[in-house]
Amino acid sequence: MKTEEVTPIKVEKTAGSRIGEVDFSKLTFGSVFTDHMFVCDFKDGKWQTPEIKPYQPLVLDPSARVFHYGQAVFEGMKAYRDEQGQVWLFRPEENFLRINKSCERMAMPAFPEDYFFDGLRTLLKLDEQWIRGGEGNSLYIRPFAIATEPSVMASPSSEYKFIIICSPAQSYYGGEVRVKIADHYSRAASGGIGSAKAAANYGAQFYPTSLAQQEGYQQVIWTDANTHEYLEEAGTMNVFFRVGNTLLTAPTSDRILDGVTRKSVIAVAQSRGINVEVRPVKVSEIIAAAKDGSLKEIFGSGTAAVINPIAGFGYKEEKFELPQIDNSYASLIKKVIIDIQYNRAEDLFGWRYKID
Amino acid sequence: MKTEEVTPIKVEKTAGSRIGEVDFSKLTFGSVFTDHMFVCDFKDGKWQTPEIKPYQPLVLDPSARVFHYGQAVFEGMKAYRDEQGQVWLFRPEENFLRINKSCERMAMPAFPEDYFFDGLRTLLKLDEQWIRGGEGNSLYIRPFAIATEPSVMASPSSEYKFIIICSPAQSYYGGEVRVKIADHYSRAASGGIGSAKAAANYGAQFYPTSLAQQEGYQQVIWTDANTHEYLEEAGTMNVFFRVGNTLLTAPTSDRILDGVTRKSVIAVAQSRGINVEVRPVKVSEIIAAAKDGSLKEIFGSGTAAVINPIAGFGYKEEKFELPQIDNSYASLIKKVIIDIQYNRAEDLFGWRYKID
Repeated sequence: MKTEEVTPIKVEKTAGSRIGEVDFSKLTFGSVFTDHMFVCDFKDGKWQTPEIKPYQPLVLDPSARVFHYGQAVFEGMKAYRDEQGQVWLFRPEENFLRINKSCERMAMPAFPEDYFFDGLRTLLKLDEQWIRGGEGNSLYIRPFAIATEPSVMASPSSEYKFIIICSPAQSYYGGEVRVKIADHYSRAASGGIGSAKAAANYGAQFYPTSLAQQEGYQQVIWTDANTHEYLEEAGTMNVFFRVGNTLLTAPTSDRILDGVTRKSVIAVAQSRGINVEVRPVKVSEIIAAAKDGSLKEIFGSGTAAVINPIAGFGYKEEKFELPQIDNSYASLIKKVIIDIQYNRAEDLFGWRYKID
Repeated sequence: MKTEEVTPIKVEKTAGSRIGEVDFSKLTFGSVFTDHMFVCDFKDGKWQTPEIKPYQPLVLDPSARVFHYGQAVFEGMKAYRDEQGQVWLFRPEENFLRINKSCERMAMPAFPEDYFFDGLRTLLKLDEQWIRGGEGNSLYIRPFAIATEPSVMASPSSEYKFIIICSPAQSYYGGEVRVKIADHYSRAASGGIGSAKAAANYGAQFYPTSLAQQEGYQQVIWTDANTHEYLEEAGTMNVFFRVGNTLLTAPTSDRILDGVTRKSVIAVAQSRGINVEVRPVKVSEIIAAAKDGSLKEIFGSGTAAVINPIAGFGYKEEKFELPQIDNSYASLIKKVIIDIQYNRAEDLFGWRYKID
């Protein structure tokens, strides 16, 4: 689809597959990986010949800059197998464009488009057996890039690795999710790296999230670092609020990730005639809506769960429960997106990408 | 000094030293490492037996969380050899306390004090030949900790490595340094991780710094992300401004690193009768002082250069040059600190730490 010429990928197949050892009915997210990995090195000012080889450890000097200065970016994608056995990706061009935006913000070199798509295709064909059919099953794909130059000088690395690893995943259900609205800690600064899918943005959230978990919440909804008056995102998900029959979500900015699922949710909602307002959302208006009963739903959007309904939230000392409703926007929109992902519905938006 | 009992460190010595291959007169900062490294693994909920072994690559699963979620912190320290051949550290307790503060903010386990100090002592004794005497020579010490659990789940790792590597360093002179005052990009958010010495804070600066470098500056002085009206720090240095005979520097906060050299500069300046004001410093007052001639000096403080005088700065479209002055505070304070570090002066503040 993307390239006329095929990238000269060097392929070394595994001597024996590990697939027989895997219980696909009991998968812990992100901990079992397929037989092969894609690796491409950047050195001498350019990306070298990409390789696919047996999944194996990385051997890096202790001074490799990724360990010291956090030059690291990633993406999250999924491959789906339909009822006819065909494998599909969902909007992979978006992930490709975004990882290169992330690279730019982290002073890392852009990765070539043909290497990305040819690498994905070759890797997925090779590890095809790991992509199981059936509702909720998928292959989680993790492209990432790291700085590898052995030097603790605090400046951009001259060497990198671009890697793709894959992990079989089952339907994601995280249980009832309650979220804490941040009123002290922050995820991102204006002028910072919040809109990049940089490793740095994730570790920074773990401590405040653990504090919220001690109060009985599962996640944090981040607010603007300046005033804590505006709702931004949930760190691994963008966030939507249904007030009456209007769906509200914050505009993207240099603090907020431009989520692929987020923009898909907006497109699907609008196509179904739902009024979507993309504008700054005040904490105070959501609390007022919770109190007067007009707040019908909150849900997160992201690759892992597509849509994750939120059962309740806390703000400072107050706790709020969301109502149980039929015909929620969350379930409506989720079904439309999943049906496209699994090739059970017409691809009206042109989002499916065939692996063959 | 710190412990009665000695930590049971497992020591494996190198078969042959690499020191003969090193030209100590031509060292590039942070790129040559000594014969040994200190490594301690955290697993099963506790730090395991520390090891010192030949300097060697790390072997990590591609899914190790440090690559994906940036759980990584570090310190920078130096060992100095005095004219009698004795080796000294400078305020290592401060680095120990700070790396554990950084660990807390990044949801990483604290490292035990006796492991830290016994590890440092044993490693420095073993690689003693790498610590050269003479003005400006030192051994740069890089303790760091990284998340190693093989899983791309976005949550804190259950496994870590705490590592110390060492690199011989010469007198650091970075040439004439001119800095750009940030008016768009930011280093840290209020409520973020700016006060932690986290890997994440460094990679985030590389791109805006490269833009400043294209304009002819070497570094950026960061301002508050909210208004860009207040001067904060320079990313690898804290910053001091001398206006008339008063030395100004920003107070530490959750956006600013609590620099060991910074607090040493303040203590030395005060002991010499210099008026030090630790308070928010406005960009506008420094520009006004540059224009009316009362701005005498700007300098950065940090482990690498101790004190780095700044020759000029830019703000938006304006450029300012600092005057050349005799008896600068920068040179006065630097001499006092270096004389303590190299054991050429009485240790009035109790900052030296003997390695024996």
